[in-house]
Amino acid sequence: MNKNNLHTNKSTCKVSIVGTGNVASALARHLSAANGIVLQSVVSREITQAEVFTQAYGFSHYTTNVADIQLSDYVLLCVTDAALPGIVARLQPNESTLYCHTAASVGIELFDTSQFNLFGVFYPLQTFSTNDLPNTKEFPLLVEGNTPETTAALLHLAKKITGLCSVMPSDKRLQLHVAAVMVNNFTNYLWAQAQQYCQAQQLDFDLLKPLIAKTAERALNTNQPLEKYQTGPAIRNDKTTIAKHLEILRNFPQYQALYRFLSNSINPKTQQTDE
Amino acid sequence: MNKNNLHTNKSTCKVSIVGTGNVASALARHLSAANGIVLQSVVSREITQAEVFTQAYGFSHYTTNVADIQLSDYVLLCVTDAALPGIVARLQPNESTLYCHTAASVGIELFDTSQFNLFGVFYPLQTFSTNDLPNTKEFPLLVEGNTPETTAALLHLAKKITGLCSVMPSDKRLQLHVAAVMVNNFTNYLWAQAQQYCQAQQLDFDLLKPLIAKTAERALNTNQPLEKYQTGPAIRNDKTTIAKHLEILRNFPQYQALYRFLSNSINPKTQQTDE
Repeated sequence: MNKNNLHTNKSTCKVSIVGTGNVASALARHLSAANGIVLQSVVSREITQAEVFTQAYGFSHYTTNVADIQLSDYVLLCVTDAALPGIVARLQPNESTLYCHTAASVGIELFDTSQFNLFGVFYPLQTFSTNDLPNTKEFPLLVEGNTPETTAALLHLAKKITGLCSVMPSDKRLQLHVAAVMVNNFTNYLWAQAQQYCQAQQLDFDLLKPLIAKTAERALNTNQPLEKYQTGPAIRNDKTTIAKHLEILRNFPQYQALYRFLSNSINPKTQQTDE
Repeated sequence: MNKNNLHTNKSTCKVSIVGTGNVASALARHLSAANGIVLQSVVSREITQAEVFTQAYGFSHYTTNVADIQLSDYVLLCVTDAALPGIVARLQPNESTLYCHTAASVGIELFDTSQFNLFGVFYPLQTFSTNDLPNTKEFPLLVEGNTPETTAALLHLAKKITGLCSVMPSDKRLQLHVAAVMVNNFTNYLWAQAQQYCQAQQLDFDLLKPLIAKTAERALNTNQPLEKYQTGPAIRNDKTTIAKHLEILRNFPQYQALYRFLSNSINPKTQQTDE
């Protein structure tokens, strides 16, 4: 094997996937549509899930046992952070197979160099849900290999899925994950809370959709720092409006706490009483 | 004057605007492009601002004195909540002119029935910025009049700007404003914080844009409750990842407090220690 061309000069690459969750599903879907990819084994604790994947994405083999993965160029571990160490311990590593996990906040050192020859990280920076339609837009794939050749092989695979691939070491990936949590998890939470509040108040959440669309459009397209677009009662320290809003929220302690905390974060003066 | 057809059967309506901020600018821009609208007076404390508006949107008159507004069918008060009472006190109300404010959290009772004959609220539920390009997409315009005829006249004006107009009383508008603050002000704040954090960590914020786009796209298009799309370390009570993230944020107390508060809101179990 010429290590300088690890997997990158093969006409087809064999890929196996461990896991059948949202990330596994998204990667399987993209890889099954890519050129030069053969989907080999899919591994799931649930045999019926593995069968579904085999049918849906054209894997040639399925199993509930990670030790049974058929010979592959790449094995992608798409399981929860907590499940990763157990999976890795049960793998029977092959010298010419590249093993990688897809977790944002787990370092490359998950793989023990005494056990694994070729390993790395293959992290898709996107939110996936099995209910979603296939992604038509590109998303970043951030890779990290244990050697330059492994990194090149991971980039080779990433480029089959997206044009937005780059190399990022574990420490930066972990830092970036914090920001991803803020713009995705926390944002979805805010909007979900607003939706529930609207239901409770018998207000039509759809009325807010043009506002959500504009807020996002601006964040995606502006060259200005987003703090320049901060409007609303908190930033202008409009205590009268904030008091009205907190009064409206008096029967919704969770929304009230959220409103109070975020208003105070935006502008600490909102909590001062005027004397 | 036939009150049943207040302003609605005129071939042209004369509109004056008090204020030259973001809302005034957006409404002037839309009204100047609408059919059957003549922009009459624009009022600003800053004479140069009033001149700029006159030139940009084709007002026929400008002044710094609200008592000098030329005879109009509609007068839109587009000033801050705090400035409204002072403006209203200085108006010299005309019996056949419809006066309305554009504030989310101010009730229709701003106008004293002993002083004003026709009055109401003309609230655009959107975020505006003078740096923005003209809005091509529609946004809700929520109106409220002191009589059915006034309400009809406000709807007549609103329909010249958007297809999404409806009637909403002051108490519901105030409730809706709370949700608007959540989906716009609080969201922009989260994203601005994420952007500043990325700068501090020398991470490319643009990497997060496909994630922001997907998060928004899903909220705008799904029929599912948004809480079904809640992912991330908090909802799955992944204390290991949360601890890593809080450690990364130790030198950023503001981001750390935000992260801790929102994680705990999403899932109160994240704060419990496992014993």
